[in-house]
Amino acid sequence: MSRFAPEKPDAAKEELKPAHRRPNMVGLMQSLPGFRDFFPSDCARRNYITGTWRRVARSFGFREYDGPTLEPLDLYRKKNSGGEILGQLFSFTDKGEREVALRPEMTPTVARMLIAKAREYRKPIKWFSIAPFFRYEKQQSGRLREFLQLNCDLVGDDSPAADAEMIALLIETMRAFGLTEKDVVVRVSDRKAWMEFLANRGITDESKARETLAVIDKLERENPEELDKKLAPLGLDLAAVRSFIESGRPAFFQVLRENLSARGLAEFCELDLRIVRGLAYYTGLVFEVFDRRQERRAIAGGGRFDRLLSDLSDGKVDLPAIGFGIGDVVLGDLLGDLPATRALMESAVAREQACDIYVVVADESRRTEALGVVQLLRALGRRVDYPLQADKVGRQFKDADASGASVALVVGEEWPKLKVKNLAERTETELSQEALADWAANLQTPAP
Amino acid sequence: MSRFAPEKPDAAKEELKPAHRRPNMVGLMQSLPGFRDFFPSDCARRNYITGTWRRVARSFGFREYDGPTLEPLDLYRKKNSGGEILGQLFSFTDKGEREVALRPEMTPTVARMLIAKAREYRKPIKWFSIAPFFRYEKQQSGRLREFLQLNCDLVGDDSPAADAEMIALLIETMRAFGLTEKDVVVRVSDRKAWMEFLANRGITDESKARETLAVIDKLERENPEELDKKLAPLGLDLAAVRSFIESGRPAFFQVLRENLSARGLAEFCELDLRIVRGLAYYTGLVFEVFDRRQERRAIAGGGRFDRLLSDLSDGKVDLPAIGFGIGDVVLGDLLGDLPATRALMESAVAREQACDIYVVVADESRRTEALGVVQLLRALGRRVDYPLQADKVGRQFKDADASGASVALVVGEEWPKLKVKNLAERTETELSQEALADWAANLQTPAP
Repeated sequence: MSRFAPEKPDAAKEELKPAHRRPNMVGLMQSLPGFRDFFPSDCARRNYITGTWRRVARSFGFREYDGPTLEPLDLYRKKNSGGEILGQLFSFTDKGEREVALRPEMTPTVARMLIAKAREYRKPIKWFSIAPFFRYEKQQSGRLREFLQLNCDLVGDDSPAADAEMIALLIETMRAFGLTEKDVVVRVSDRKAWMEFLANRGITDESKARETLAVIDKLERENPEELDKKLAPLGLDLAAVRSFIESGRPAFFQVLRENLSARGLAEFCELDLRIVRGLAYYTGLVFEVFDRRQERRAIAGGGRFDRLLSDLSDGKVDLPAIGFGIGDVVLGDLLGDLPATRALMESAVAREQACDIYVVVADESRRTEALGVVQLLRALGRRVDYPLQADKVGRQFKDADASGASVALVVGEEWPKLKVKNLAERTETELSQEALADWAANLQTPAP
Repeated sequence: MSRFAPEKPDAAKEELKPAHRRPNMVGLMQSLPGFRDFFPSDCARRNYITGTWRRVARSFGFREYDGPTLEPLDLYRKKNSGGEILGQLFSFTDKGEREVALRPEMTPTVARMLIAKAREYRKPIKWFSIAPFFRYEKQQSGRLREFLQLNCDLVGDDSPAADAEMIALLIETMRAFGLTEKDVVVRVSDRKAWMEFLANRGITDESKARETLAVIDKLERENPEELDKKLAPLGLDLAAVRSFIESGRPAFFQVLRENLSARGLAEFCELDLRIVRGLAYYTGLVFEVFDRRQERRAIAGGGRFDRLLSDLSDGKVDLPAIGFGIGDVVLGDLLGDLPATRALMESAVAREQACDIYVVVADESRRTEALGVVQLLRALGRRVDYPLQADKVGRQFKDADASGASVALVVGEEWPKLKVKNLAERTETELSQEALADWAANLQTPAP
């Protein structure tokens, strides 16, 4: 059920050395390998990514949901998750003797929630979540053991228009960071087109067809002899497979492109029948996002799974669905590497950390009044800092600069008047008590 | 190191029955006991709480940080965490044979981060985080096994002004939900005042003093005979303790009240020397927040811990600190129970879930143009929904109402003109293509 299948299923096993136990301060000083401390600038970068995801998903009318971080292990057993994920679980037995696991992916959780309550919602159901996930993966570029993922699902509509809506949402989640069609591409394919091709070749048995697709999923990674050896017993050969991949412009892709064209997004999307996604439950459109230079792992992936809810609920809830997941690690690396997207990100990071106004207490006998001013400005939604203790005015202005504030408000001997210092332009104006609230409400500061 | 010490340290042990293994769909349908599925309206309520916390903490110039969900078990051993928390850990051995634990509280993590990098930041350091925590607690009102907590810490300033700033922040995190001084109260006390009282009674040995405070922490919960029995070997009796509690208006409280008065917040704060907080590492101000009716557990708690960073870093980082934690469970229950705060919350929940604009496709031959309009409006930051498939106009208007949108934009035979329907007032106006972007940018919709 993984939207991101790792390339090496048993990579985690490669790390066999037991970690040194470190009960001293050296141990205290480090987080676990593959886990991150988010210092404020790191956290601002994280918030830029999650905040942008949230804004775009909401603009498409998606509603946010979430589930528990810890789930019953059984949720990932059975047919729900791929074998790769099962081998990478952080699982254990809790104090109540339940077998539990840190969630490695969202689909089993959202499937459970949909099966429980899909009836109560108007269709199509459009839900998104932004949450942390956990996989015990080998440490390598683009992979962490705790990572964030945006998951979006559209449930209850199996039309090509729903497919296009999801691809458009996926493209917009990247465009919103300044990524262009020169930076990233959505490669789309269709399991239905493959099923037809296989049926024409006499492979009509579903489990056999899925077995074939699992082999084709490895087309780029295994050598031709190996692939031919695996395809032969299925009545296929590599040449026929390659010829199908290069052959067509299937109808589904024309419909998708026309829809995306109406939105000005067609250049982000390419047909690539090599994309089949190894997982059994995909039934139609499948897709992955890559950077155009092909230097990184997939940035995102997803597909249509029209039978999963029915399968998991023994037919009680029979709703078609399409969804995708996009992680923060590969995307974050890409945003940091491209100059244009990095500039946007760093400017957001600076805005998130900056105060709006620094209140300078120039006359210590006016501290009570200064506190009242601070309180008023904060109540108006402004980010305000001030010196907790008596300090020289010169040092206070240094702190004001360091706070990122664009203006300093000076409480001093002019009281009840205030001085407003524009910290960038080093200009100064006077402000009356009566005008303070209006001034603060109308102060132009960068949006957080 | 718990900012919330549970009342019964070994409550978790009461649940001894091994849980039934449920490898079938019934199991799939349920989350673990004490863990929450957040359906969209639950998630909107959660986001209202976390979003309000974030807004208030930022207004005080605090910067957000975060740490890993999973930490080395050693971080909670030693003197870092109280024995209660150690007994409630979700801990296990990972695939690399590391002993790890789901974080039960933030202080050990932020202490580690501060010890690593405090030197790089201007003082005082003002940090907050909003994150999930995990404790295997007995299921009971106000307690869950996964909960969210706002943690705020001010590091590098040991002045009463810093204490007041933190209490003011704590009060504002509750006022922002519409809670008044009639609903909640911050009870403050000071471990220093207690240390002086104990020293006057001949208890000068620090560990003995802490032992005494641990007994006094249980003043409300144990019977008098039991308490006297525990106090006697320390050279104290209950009468003397009660008399000290009722005696004083210590100097620290006057300073605190004056500072809060300057902000109009004094009525939220009361002296209560019964609050000592059983944990060893608090060194000065300690406080807890309760609802005025005393119907619930503490909503929040915190205190000053001036020696913790030095103790944990063997003196390498010697910075005073004060912090507090506030959870989402008891607070959420209180907000849901009081009519005024519930109304504010539910209105925020409705706003979070509502679309701004519903685009009605009245003429199916204009679907391509309608998609362009949808794309434009979303790019302008609007939340927009529309029918994925051809549908009767009447049903589209029903969907428009259900979407929460305040206006419907009709793409039909008037094209290239558009019709704007105000869904509340049922009024209609016409809009030209050229005016569309301006209209959308200026559309008054409730802030999310």
